[in-house]
Amino acid sequence: MINFGRGVPSADLIDVAGLAQAAGAASTANADASFGYGSPAGYQPLREWIAARHGVDAGSVLVTPGAMQAVALAVDLLVGGEDDTAGEVLVDRPTYDMVLRALAARPVTVRQLALGREWVEPVAAPGAAAVRRCVYAVPTFRNPDGATMALPERELLLERAALEGSAVIEDDPYQELRFDGPALPPLWRLGGLEQVVHVSSFSKTVCPGLRVGYVIADETRIEGLIAAANRTYITPSMFAQAVVHRYLLDGGLDAPLQRMRTELAARAELLCELLSEQLPQARFERPQGGYFVWLRLPSTLTASTLAAAAQRHGVVVAPGSGFLVDGGGEHCVRLCFAAEPPNRIAEGVRRLAAAAREADTREADTRESGAPGGSQQAAGRPQLGEEAVLADPA
Amino acid sequence: MINFGRGVPSADLIDVAGLAQAAGAASTANADASFGYGSPAGYQPLREWIAARHGVDAGSVLVTPGAMQAVALAVDLLVGGEDDTAGEVLVDRPTYDMVLRALAARPVTVRQLALGREWVEPVAAPGAAAVRRCVYAVPTFRNPDGATMALPERELLLERAALEGSAVIEDDPYQELRFDGPALPPLWRLGGLEQVVHVSSFSKTVCPGLRVGYVIADETRIEGLIAAANRTYITPSMFAQAVVHRYLLDGGLDAPLQRMRTELAARAELLCELLSEQLPQARFERPQGGYFVWLRLPSTLTASTLAAAAQRHGVVVAPGSGFLVDGGGEHCVRLCFAAEPPNRIAEGVRRLAAAAREADTREADTRESGAPGGSQQAAGRPQLGEEAVLADPA
Repeated sequence: MINFGRGVPSADLIDVAGLAQAAGAASTANADASFGYGSPAGYQPLREWIAARHGVDAGSVLVTPGAMQAVALAVDLLVGGEDDTAGEVLVDRPTYDMVLRALAARPVTVRQLALGREWVEPVAAPGAAAVRRCVYAVPTFRNPDGATMALPERELLLERAALEGSAVIEDDPYQELRFDGPALPPLWRLGGLEQVVHVSSFSKTVCPGLRVGYVIADETRIEGLIAAANRTYITPSMFAQAVVHRYLLDGGLDAPLQRMRTELAARAELLCELLSEQLPQARFERPQGGYFVWLRLPSTLTASTLAAAAQRHGVVVAPGSGFLVDGGGEHCVRLCFAAEPPNRIAEGVRRLAAAAREADTREADTRESGAPGGSQQAAGRPQLGEEAVLADPA
Repeated sequence: MINFGRGVPSADLIDVAGLAQAAGAASTANADASFGYGSPAGYQPLREWIAARHGVDAGSVLVTPGAMQAVALAVDLLVGGEDDTAGEVLVDRPTYDMVLRALAARPVTVRQLALGREWVEPVAAPGAAAVRRCVYAVPTFRNPDGATMALPERELLLERAALEGSAVIEDDPYQELRFDGPALPPLWRLGGLEQVVHVSSFSKTVCPGLRVGYVIADETRIEGLIAAANRTYITPSMFAQAVVHRYLLDGGLDAPLQRMRTELAARAELLCELLSEQLPQARFERPQGGYFVWLRLPSTLTASTLAAAAQRHGVVVAPGSGFLVDGGGEHCVRLCFAAEPPNRIAEGVRRLAAAAREADTREADTRESGAPGGSQQAAGRPQLGEEAVLADPA
């Protein structure tokens, strides 16, 4: 099975030799700290490394078992409460499906709109001034569609959030995975740590299996997060953090990052070329970084039909509906180009194209009516599905 | 600072050489699985190892980032809900402070009583039949007081829980740390997996810094827990689990367990001998396993006064109030004998005895009044504090 469906790096993107060396060093040189409980704030040398890289104090850093756990802690800190008043979380459109699932399991109200463009009117319900609220966004190479908020969009988001008194959670794991061109300032640089809780991770830059993420935030918020972390999981894995720290000390982050960027850029280009050739009926933006291509399907082809047909052809895709609340996304699929090496990307697109031919209702009608020239190319570019346009990341 | 206050193993109890070897093997032999995301259910070979050891299917096992995280997930599964109805958790008296803190941060009602003895009348509030309820207990070598529920107490607990329709969370990390004598059956063996969610960990048997705990439960509950785990932290650290698995494969658990038991038994005996000699005004049960001695102080000495004086003398203890809700425990302290090697235990008791002499109000009165023979021993055994009796684990 070729998997475009999960946002993970393929095994060959991980520097196993370097990590094995770091693991050996961490388990001998610093064994007491690696194998003991340590502090809920994280392994102090790694905390300091992250602080130095971002130019903040170590007191503004919390190391967590992955970024997802960090987002969950941040949401609970910002909008949770011991009373029964439900908080409110405003999320981008589309947004990361795992966060939508985490929010669905909490007593919070979720509102979704395209934050950098559609958020012009206040979204707070009338008389809801006392409700605890926050904003969740992946501003750079967004999961699922790879879109990046332009600077004016970032500024609009921060301005609106400030007007409505909402703190902002910036989930930023892909920021370092830009293929080329200058980076935009992250939200926490623009809005400051009073407004923004910045979450990131080593999952997309070093490896996911160690589960090491982190938060950069205002020291008061970090203290609240440390207490919550402590009563949730006592401490994060000290050994996993010691391995990451040793890996960073030995080789730095820049060389692995450069290698990762080059590989991902090549895969993104290959995927886009092949999609243009073999699925001309679908549209997409070429990603400038990150992990994802967001495929907008014609109105005659739904994501769920395509995903089911693709499964039969041995390829997995993520239907767009998972990234949108209250319906939508029915004509979009997310493809991850990080999870498979180039030869399997090529085979995956062949399978996906075959699945699309099989699943497209217009194709099927054409075939059933026995009309000649049944390929989509011959039939001209079909209209995009309405929901694909709604979720347009451009 | 000599620390009797935290329930952790000292560094010399951890088989660092064995773990370093396991880390090296895990990072080379099984690198793809170790450094990738894996499954939210845990690293499959470790899941299977745990299942085999307990004689259950792997589908009844969830591996978690530590046992505390497992308890949090189980509480949310059993009594949480998307609506606003608060669930109810019945906990033992006294009980693990970290769990009390985790519960305090959730919209649940916490009731505390000595489960195996005082739970004779139903505790459900009238008309509260629809409230989701569960029971949380550490039946063996309980944190904080080292007490173990006898078989009739276990049976009473399970019978009461069944009558009231409550599932039971059995937190059992100390069960394998029995110094001698036959083990009692854990609650999940007595009540079955339909009634009991069993939680344990390798933190007390291998090392805490890897953060590898686990749940054994009914497969349906395991499925619910996997979904919750996935939306909380995606997956637990695969590498940490691979290291534990490799460690268990290479050397088994029995040899390290035997070494741990021997060491802990020696420390417990040393601590108890020295306490009898140097703090004769306090009472305690001799532990038969686990990590803890629960010291019951005379009515003239409160735990908070003793803890503050101890801090000044360079020794940390955990006041009993942290383990009891709604007050209580004011004349109890928890001492952990696992956290310090024997020579430091000896020095720690000397410091604690000096702190007790300084903090005891009767002593202080005696000194102030200039009466001769001011030692507690000369004054005869003082009466125990009322709360110490209330929290009596015997």
